[in-house]
Amino acid sequence: MKQSVVVLLSGGLDSSTLLASLQQDGWNVIALSILYGQRHKKEIQASEAIAHYYQVEHQVVDISTVQTLFAGSALTSDDIAVPHGHYTDSSMKSTVVPNRNMVFLSLAGALAVSRKAQAIAYAAHAGDHTIYPDCRMSFITKMREAFALCDWEPVSLLTPFASCTKADIVSQGMRLKVPYDLTWSCYEGGTHHCGQCGTCVERIEAFQLSQAIDPTTYQA
Amino acid sequence: MKQSVVVLLSGGLDSSTLLASLQQDGWNVIALSILYGQRHKKEIQASEAIAHYYQVEHQVVDISTVQTLFAGSALTSDDIAVPHGHYTDSSMKSTVVPNRNMVFLSLAGALAVSRKAQAIAYAAHAGDHTIYPDCRMSFITKMREAFALCDWEPVSLLTPFASCTKADIVSQGMRLKVPYDLTWSCYEGGTHHCGQCGTCVERIEAFQLSQAIDPTTYQA
Repeated sequence: MKQSVVVLLSGGLDSSTLLASLQQDGWNVIALSILYGQRHKKEIQASEAIAHYYQVEHQVVDISTVQTLFAGSALTSDDIAVPHGHYTDSSMKSTVVPNRNMVFLSLAGALAVSRKAQAIAYAAHAGDHTIYPDCRMSFITKMREAFALCDWEPVSLLTPFASCTKADIVSQGMRLKVPYDLTWSCYEGGTHHCGQCGTCVERIEAFQLSQAIDPTTYQA
Repeated sequence: MKQSVVVLLSGGLDSSTLLASLQQDGWNVIALSILYGQRHKKEIQASEAIAHYYQVEHQVVDISTVQTLFAGSALTSDDIAVPHGHYTDSSMKSTVVPNRNMVFLSLAGALAVSRKAQAIAYAAHAGDHTIYPDCRMSFITKMREAFALCDWEPVSLLTPFASCTKADIVSQGMRLKVPYDLTWSCYEGGTHHCGQCGTCVERIEAFQLSQAIDPTTYQA
């Protein structure tokens, strides 16, 4: 029987490539998307499209009610403007959601344990910004050790992109023929990617650096 | 200024005593109760009563929507009977909620980070049953190490009852004059404690062993 892995799927470049890569490696993939009060539903639509494309089970969990705990982040509040331009420490701090990675990983772990999956995976990568403390490898290592003990059977925490840049991920995805036109990165909720917010700038750069054709339509 | 601690409050004996003890030690307590699809709301009512008694802030977060992830537990499903009698490995396995402690701790961590609290606390104790893998000290230690790294400022994970029995906790609570009549332990949702389920049996024993007067009204 195939081994199963719960993949945290946001519908962006990284997690979609991760899903494709793990399926290619022979895993039975269960995709998990988490709604936590995003200002738009574009991410979930993209996740659904990717899961459907790869014919994998897709679970969506809505924890928007914890929004009160995540107070102060531009990603969950309508009162705070999304910063434009490139990521910098000062402008992007408003997009930090407190302890988000631990919350998301713990929910992936719950699904893994209940389904007797052997592993969970998420697309932590070397480009993760130093303003996110819970993207540090030291944190991920401790979570990996905790997951080895959270149930009687250890749950493996897979982060195969941990030392990849976003451009490396796109290069790998192009080889895997990931349908990047189905993915969504933009923090704004428009019809098309805005092309100006931090993640759009990153997305554009990743395609440029990997010398791949960007299938995205940008507003700007 | 006082240091702040987020206390996971279920409204039972242990977490209520923990709250009282930390307040006594001079902490500013923020209580956090988590609704995860319990079959009754008695626990939350008890938590509210305790938080009100101690005049501390009380946050309630509803993550009932993750119930699908917790499939198979008697605590969240109406289809599975609550096992009666004393805890034993075989009968109590149906009350195991997958990865519950990590999910709860991660949410407490989110609240702590957003409020700039220095610590989170929960009432892990020596009587925690060996059927709960995420009650093991080895797991708690790894989570403690993860919490030291989840934000730029470390978040301390306090488990002052880790080497106490439930009777030790009640003894300490009696000295602190914890209003145990306001607390709730029973897995059933009746008007009074049933006196027969695993947690009721434990509650009765804890009062007997600590030679304290049990203020609880039992159905049986």
